[in-house]
Formats: sequence, structure tokens, C-alpha cells
Amino acid sequence: QEKDTTSLAPVVKEKPFTHTSKGFVFTTADEKFELQFASRFQFRFAVPDDQDPISFNDFKNQDVKLFKINRARLKIGGHAYQPWFKYYFEYELGQSILLDFRIMVEKWPWLKFKAGQWKVEYTRERFISSGEQQLVDRSLLNRTFTVDRQQGISVYGNLNGGGAANFNYWLGVFTGTGRGTRVNDDSKMMYFGRFQWNPLGREVPFSGGDVNISQKPAALIALAGITNTSPYTRFSSSGGGNLSGFEGTNDGQYSVKQYNLETAFVYKGFSWASEFHRKNIVDNFEDGGSTTLGGFYFTAGYFPYQVLNFWPKPLEIAVRIAEIRPDLSISQNRQKEVALGFNWFFAGHKNKLTTELTKFTFEDQSLPQSDELRFRLQYDVSF
Amino acid sequence: QEKDTTSLAPVVKEKPFTHTSKGFVFTTADEKFELQFASRFQFRFAVPDDQDPISFNDFKNQDVKLFKINRARLKIGGHAYQPWFKYYFEYELGQSILLDFRIMVEKWPWLKFKAGQWKVEYTRERFISSGEQQLVDRSLLNRTFTVDRQQGISVYGNLNGGGAANFNYWLGVFTGTGRGTRVNDDSKMMYFGRFQWNPLGREVPFSGGDVNISQKPAALIALAGITNTSPYTRFSSSGGGNLSGFEGTNDGQYSVKQYNLETAFVYKGFSWASEFHRKNIVDNFEDGGSTTLGGFYFTAGYFPYQVLNFWPKPLEIAVRIAEIRPDLSISQNRQKEVALGFNWFFAGHKNKLTTELTKFTFEDQSLPQSDELRFRLQYDVSF
Amino acid sequence: QEKDTTSLAPVVKEKPFTHTSKGFVFTTADEKFELQFASRFQFRFAVPDDQDPISFNDFKNQDVKLFKINRARLKIGGHAYQPWFKYYFEYELGQSILLDFRIMVEKWPWLKFKAGQWKVEYTRERFISSGEQQLVDRSLLNRTFTVDRQQGISVYGNLNGGGAANFNYWLGVFTGTGRGTRVNDDSKMMYFGRFQWNPLGREVPFSGGDVNISQKPAALIALAGITNTSPYTRFSSSGGGNLSGFEGTNDGQYSVKQYNLETAFVYKGFSWASEFHRKNIVDNFEDGGSTTLGGFYFTAGYFPYQVLNFWPKPLEIAVRIAEIRPDLSISQNRQKEVALGFNWFFAGHKNKLTTELTKFTFEDQSLPQSDELRFRLQYDVSF
Repeated sequence: QEKDTTSLAPVVKEKPFTHTSKGFVFTTADEKFELQFASRFQFRFAVPDDQDPISFNDFKNQDVKLFKINRARLKIGGHAYQPWFKYYFEYELGQSILLDFRIMVEKWPWLKFKAGQWKVEYTRERFISSGEQQLVDRSLLNRTFTVDRQQGISVYGNLNGGGAANFNYWLGVFTGTGRGTRVNDDSKMMYFGRFQWNPLGREVPFSGGDVNISQKPAALIALAGITNTSPYTRFSSSGGGNLSGFEGTNDGQYSVKQYNLETAFVYKGFSWASEFHRKNIVDNFEDGGSTTLGGFYFTAGYFPYQVLNFWPKPLEIAVRIAEIRPDLSISQNRQKEVALGFNWFFAGHKNKLTTELTKFTFEDQSLPQSDELRFRLQYDVSF
Repeated sequence: QEKDTTSLAPVVKEKPFTHTSKGFVFTTADEKFELQFASRFQFRFAVPDDQDPISFNDFKNQDVKLFKINRARLKIGGHAYQPWFKYYFEYELGQSILLDFRIMVEKWPWLKFKAGQWKVEYTRERFISSGEQQLVDRSLLNRTFTVDRQQGISVYGNLNGGGAANFNYWLGVFTGTGRGTRVNDDSKMMYFGRFQWNPLGREVPFSGGDVNISQKPAALIALAGITNTSPYTRFSSSGGGNLSGFEGTNDGQYSVKQYNLETAFVYKGFSWASEFHRKNIVDNFEDGGSTTLGGFYFTAGYFPYQVLNFWPKPLEIAVRIAEIRPDLSISQNRQKEVALGFNWFFAGHKNKLTTELTKFTFEDQSLPQSDELRFRLQYDVSF
Repeated sequence: QEKDTTSLAPVVKEKPFTHTSKGFVFTTADEKFELQFASRFQFRFAVPDDQDPISFNDFKNQDVKLFKINRARLKIGGHAYQPWFKYYFEYELGQSILLDFRIMVEKWPWLKFKAGQWKVEYTRERFISSGEQQLVDRSLLNRTFTVDRQQGISVYGNLNGGGAANFNYWLGVFTGTGRGTRVNDDSKMMYFGRFQWNPLGREVPFSGGDVNISQKPAALIALAGITNTSPYTRFSSSGGGNLSGFEGTNDGQYSVKQYNLETAFVYKGFSWASEFHRKNIVDNFEDGGSTTLGGFYFTAGYFPYQVLNFWPKPLEIAVRIAEIRPDLSISQNRQKEVALGFNWFFAGHKNKLTTELTKFTFEDQSLPQSDELRFRLQYDVSF
């Protein structure tokens, strides 16, 4: 006689925890709450110096071999109450500073909301995580033109009319005083807009290179602009600061207007990206104190195993060229960077070794040309 | 015919993880270890200023629109080795400071023990989490009278003789030097006691308003006292500091004695709370340097949908009146606050929007009366 | 005819989370990723002072009763991508500093790799976690001779030829500038080696005492050496600093060579450990500026219930004797410590109460002998 086996195995409603590109992921049975828990370590060796040169003095380096824990991040995100109500924060453990801190309402693809502190989507190079860059770190351009992290609110989305009618937009209002500030200097805010056309009907991801070997091409052309009035002429993870030549610290001293024209493209292991910048700084405390800065960069990368049988599959080669003009009215003043890099991807951007050789050349109307060759080796791993 | 029992469903002994008001909760199969993991974000917009005025100078505000990430908390708690052996710590990520840090032995309701650093249960307003306040933040009273977080040990419990014979008590000894200190200034400690009568046989929870619409009324009358000798005349999350008019910083300079008489009541969406304070400060480094401060506040809130059909269910209305007398010997010196607020509870105190309008009025024997109207909007969410 | 569905209960591939000595442990179903999450609190009471005396001035203590949260640690570790690719970081919440931060490749017992920042394995006393010490804290020796945490890379392993042919080795290169630095002062590195013989064929664990009552004896004899050139003559959790008598802060000012000869033994509840130190400091900025320091300590502990029926099982007794000679050329200058301690282990080192009485005696060629008696009580608990 046969056994009765009607007994249904118990339905384990709980989604087990998993590990994804967002780290360890814990989701409740009703899928209303999710916790993502990740950490990231970045080890860097550099000789003769790690930081990009800022002035001619930086070319007189001491003979230093540098090894450091460059980044140690704790990243916690997920969703709460509803799958479309998301949260995220990122803490830099080595320096004990809160970097990202934001909530997002992402119910509709064409209309999303964000509030908190994050890297403004003004340039793709800055917005891409330091762990997903194509070379060891961002280009020479970044220090001069990024607006980095700001506190405020934003509305954004993707408008997809089918085919080439595919657009992204971002509009934001920020206090304009940079990361970690708890007051605005005055009632003047930072305003931000970015409009992006995806002519091939697909978005290029915010990630360096084409690690996933895209089988369909994706491209973007974007124009972004910022206006701000604050005591600062530049921003970084440390908050607001000044570019060389700007020493003011008064509330509302600098009115800055800047724009960025950007392209990017990925296809079958090949990647391309470019930025073209203009930035005008008016010193409100000085007559005629107006300076316009310019700059551009382009970068390209490729996984040669796509065409060369002998080439190792995880090895990407990448180049970058960047130039800054600290004052467009002085055509001799130029700062240039040419870099060649190799990435070995053990597990995509989440576990990779990068090596890079960079030549910096600074030209000035009144100083002899200076240059420097820098070597860097970096290991970046996420858990 | 025999029963077939071969197919016992496997007993999954592991309690799955869940999400509760304490965040994500992970409990081991034997229930001996539990980890609670939560984060909380608080976004605030304020005009013309966020902080309560302290002196007459604070009424000459600049025209500032302020948006800030006011609180970013990581809260980790649970139990270990036994369900009654609990631990908890809370870290403020935005400022990188350790706020709470404590272990608790809570085996018997009438006799519990706590050691570490936490908000002394001296006043209910201060002890209630900043995320469970009824208005945007605590009243004008708090800066002057709270003893905030202290490091030490405490014994406490609930004595329930049935019906109106229901009492809570707290007794504590602290170093009396505030949050984050690693030494005591001298051998003199802070002593603390609080006695609370719950005349209706139930405890009023340490949470603002009556969000849970209590079906049975609860009330409390409490008397609490503190004595301390330290270099400080006030305490906050930043540690010890001085009230205006007190500039000393010597070890053991100030002997402070203070008491607080408190009431609270909740029933069917209505809530009431009051505090009445006296605080005597003796400057041990100055002859006759004795000052007595006084103050009171009361607050009430209601969920009008309990009686008005058209009123939205999640919308609470609340009012607050507070007054400080910085020196009881000068009857003209008074600092007043009147506030009206509205809460929209998306998910109780764990996800809410609060808006508040406050009028401050400062009176002084030698200065013309000053006042200010402040508007604040706040979104507070826990994950 | 009915289908036979002797239904195998669904294989729950997910390893449930557990709690071990490493805290809460979450492992993915494929065992490729593991997250360990632990916190540790250490509460300390000390009178008349907590810190070991450094100079004769420290014997003129004020009458202070000290209670403090001495350590509040968040410890996160595990493995990623492969079980043998491990990571670990430890953050001190009370002081907001990143202590440990490392990745390890531990595929083969005889050849392991480590990179990051950690406590160099130069002395066993320092390497053992502050939570697994036998007395309240490390000996007087530690401040003078430890190289503490450093940033760099290391290769290490266990060579087991069977029986007494059992050896451990460590070789490392570090920047030699201590915890938390982001640049090296010059191109000179710290070099480190440690060779350890385990004559009984087993390693003595890096943990104080013999809490697990080893049924087989284990012993070690180790010799370790360090050379370094840096601005520092000592290191601690705060980074690099100077011993008294050394005031320089120039890059590469001090060339330090030091060695440590060490023993340890555990068997049936009895434990023994000793260190013998020599440290030579050359001041490169001063002619003839060479100083040699010396010191030793030994410590022993026992669980008397092994032989005494009446003795409580969790109670260990321990003694320690330490001596420093700050300048071997001046034989009168000596700093001594004699300590007696008791541990009550609620759950091994993870939950214990320690009490300790220490006598310090300082002798100097030109000053009268000074001494101090110190009492400390400590509770240390991990979750």
C-alpha cells in the first residue's frame, strides 16, 4: 500500500539572506524591509606621491614610498515600509566622516525624489564610486570642477519615448556649502540641473569601463549646470575649500556658475567617456574679480581578449588625457595629465587590482615647464 | 490502518530575522543571543534659525534658510547569554560621537540594573528619544535643566501592589561630568533619584503623544532630584558646558542641586505632560555665588479624528508652553516659548512628518522685550 | 495509481545565522561569503588613577575615583569570494578611530599573507586582544616596547614537521609611522621578523591564561626583532609618540632597533608567559645620541579548582612582575610593577570580571624612591 504523502513541505516564507553586489542582503518575508550591509577596503601604494600635483611646488617631491589604507567604507542601505522607499548611508571609517546619507522615493521611473547628502550628479566621473573608477582615481579635472557632496533635495527620472527618445533628467536644490555642514551661510542656495540624452535607447551605467561586456551599445550626451553662492570655490569629501588663487572665507563671497558637456559610450568591452568644463567665479568682495576656468578630459578602455586570444580575460587596458586651464585669459597656463592603466578584475569592480602610470605637465607664463612621472598600484575589494 | 508519520516537516528551529520597532532583529535558535540593528535619519528645515534662542543676541538673526541632516543614528542592541542580559549602543554618524552605551540586567521587573552611559531618567522630556518627541524638538527648558547623558550605574524597577499601588523608582550614581568623558574631575559623584507613582495602575510609556490611542487611561506623577559637583552648569550631547552667566572651568567649581516635579497622562489619543523645575547652583570659587533657576512646561496633544469624522487619521495636533526664569531673584527675567505643531504619522514615530510654529519671548529687567517667530519642518524616519 | 512523492523535505541550503566567539555569524548558502558582527564593551573602575605611572609626577595623584567606558568596539570580519580570503576591521566607537583593517589570504597553513593595519605580532602581550588579557590591562612594559598597530604587508605561517619540529614565522614590512597615518615620513620602512618554536608540537593560543583548561601542554619560545626609522620612539592606539626624554619630531629622526625574547606555556589551567626586551634608539639629529632601554616581565595564572575542591570553578588567580630600565647605562633607574589579579569567567574571556591590585615602584639616581598602590575593577563583555 502506498504511503500518504500529502503533507506539503513547509513554505519557508522568509527570503534567506544573500550576498550581492550590494553586500550582504537581508529581506523580510513580506519584502517590505531590506537591509544591505557592505564594507569596502582600498589599499594604495604610490611613488613618489599619491595626490595629483596642485602647484609647481608639488613637483619637488621628497623621495617617499607611500602605502596607505586609502578608503575604508561602511555602506548600509536598503528599503523600508515599501520596496520603493529606499535609504542609504556610507561612512568613511578611516577618517570618521559621514559621506552619503539619503532617502529616495523611487516608485515611478520617470519621477523620483531624493533628500539628504550625496554626490551631485553633475559629472559622471565624480558620481561613479571611487571603487568603480577605470584608473586608480579620478582625473586632474576633479579637484577643480566637482561640486562633490551637497545637502539638499532632488527630483530626477528617465523619460522613455521608445528608441532614441530616451532622456534622463536631474534637478536639485542644495545648501551649497558642501559635505557635513549643519548651517547654510546665507539664504542663497545651489541650483543644479542635468539633462541627458541616451540616443541608443539605453542608459550607460554609472560605472567605469565596460566590465560586463555590453552586447548592445549604449551612449549618452549630457549637459549639466550649477550656480552657487558660498564662501567656497571648490568642494571635496572634506567639505568646502578654495582653489589656489582664491583666499576668501566670507559668507557668500563667491558666485560660481559652471557647466559640463559630457559623453559616454560602451560596447563589447570598449568604453569611452569625456567631459568638457567651463567655470566662472565672481568674487563679490572685490571689483572686477571674475575668473573663468576651463578643462576637459577623455578616457577610453578595452578588454583586448575580445579580439586577442592570448590576452587574459580579466585584464583591461585604459588611457586618460586631461587638461585644466586655471584662467582662460592666460593661454600659457595649462595643467596636463596623461595616464595609462591596467585593471585585473577578480570579481568585477568589487575585487580588482589596478596599476597606473601618469605623466603630469604644468605650464605657466612665468615659470619653466615642470613634469612628474607617478606610479600607483591599488587593490580595491568589497565585502 | 496505520498513520504515516514518516514525513515530519523539518523543524526549523532558527527564528527568522524580522523587522520591528527596534529595526532588523536577528535571534539565535536558542533565543540566548539577539541582535537589533536600526538606523534613523532626521531631516530638518528651519527659518530663520534652528536653535532655540539663548540670549537677546539670538533675536538678531541673519536671513538664513537652513536645511540639514540633523541626526543620523546607528542603533545596535539586543541580548546576550540570557534574554534578560541586554545591551545597547547608539552612535551619531554625522558627528562621530558615541551617545548611548549600556548593559542592563533586567531579570526581575522590580529590581533592574544598568551600567554605562545613557540619558539619566531625570526628566521624561529628555529621556524620550529625539525621534519620539511630540514637536520638532524638546522645549526651551531642556538646555537649562537636563543633565543629559552621564556615565555610571543605576538600579531601578516597578513596584506593583495592584491597582493604584503602582510605583517606579530609579537610583543612580554617575561621574557627573557628562557624555564622553574618560575621567572624573574629583572624587565627588552625581547622585540621582526618581520616584514615580502610576495612580491608574499602568505606566505611561516613554514616548511622545498617544500615537497608539490608549484604550485605558494611564497617568504618572513623579519627583526627581540630582546633586552634583563638577566644572559644569549644564549638559548636552556635546558633554558638559556652562549656562550663560557661568564662566568657571575649575574642577569641582559648581555644586548643583535640582529637582523636577512631573506629570503625564494619555487616553484615547489625548496626551498631557508637564514638568516643574528648580535648580540651585553654588559657585564654590566665589563668595555668595548662589543662583536659583526655575522653569516649567506643559504640553498637550490630540488626534482629532477620534471625534471629528473629516479629520485625517494620522494627523495629530499639539501645543506647548514653556517658561524659564534664569534667576528667581530677578522676577522680570523670563524666557517664554509657545508652540503649535502638527504630526503626520506614516508609521507611528518611526516615520513621521512634523511641522511647528514657535513664538519665543524674552523679558529682561534692563532690556526691551524681544521676540521671534520660528517655523520648522522635520521628517524623521527609522529603518 | 498514485504518484510516490516521498517528498524529500526541502533542503534548506542556507546556513542559519549563529552566535560564536566571533559574534553573530552570517554565512551564505554556498559558504563563499561570511559576515561576523560583534561588539565589545569594557567598563573600568580605578582608584587613585587608571593609567600606569610614566614619570615621578604621576605619583602625586589627586584623589580621583574613576569610572569609565574604557573600550567600545565594533568588530566586523568574515570571508568573501573564497573561505580562505578573509577580512576584518575593528572600530573604537568611544574615540571614533579605526583600529584594525586587514585582508588575509589564508589558503595554506605554512604560507599566509596579510595586508592592512593591525597589531604587529612583535610581542604576545600586545597582540593578545585587550579583551583576552589575564589582568585588567597590559603590563608597564607595553608603553615602552610595543610597536602597536602599523600599516603594511606580512607573510606568515606554521611549519609543522611533526612533534617538536613545529615552528611559526612572521615577516613584515610596514610604513613604521603607526596607526592611522596616511603618508610615510620618508622612504625608510619598518622591518619585522618573528620566529617561534613550539617544542611540544602545538601552538599556544593568542589568549591570556588557560581558560579552556588545556589537556595537553603547549609551549613556545620566540625571538622577534624590529628596525625602524621614523619621527617616533613609541607607538600606541593614538599613533606615534615619544618616550620621555625624546622630544624630536623630525622626519626620520629616530632609528630604533629592538628585540624581544619570549616564552609561554599552558597546561591544565596553569599558564605562564614572559618577555625580555632590549631597544636601542639613535637620534639621527644629535651626535652620540644613542640610548638603550631594557625590560622584562613574567606572568603566571592558575585555576585552583583543578586541585582545590572548594575553589569556585570560574575563578582564576594571576600574578605579574615587570621591570623597565629606561637607560641601561644608569643602573639605578628602574620602574617596577607587581600585580595580583583575580578573574571570574562568566563565559570565558567573552564575559568576565577582573579585579587587580598593583604596586608600582620607581627608582632614580637623583630622586627618592616613589611608589603607588592602585586598585582596578573591570567588566568586559562581548556580544
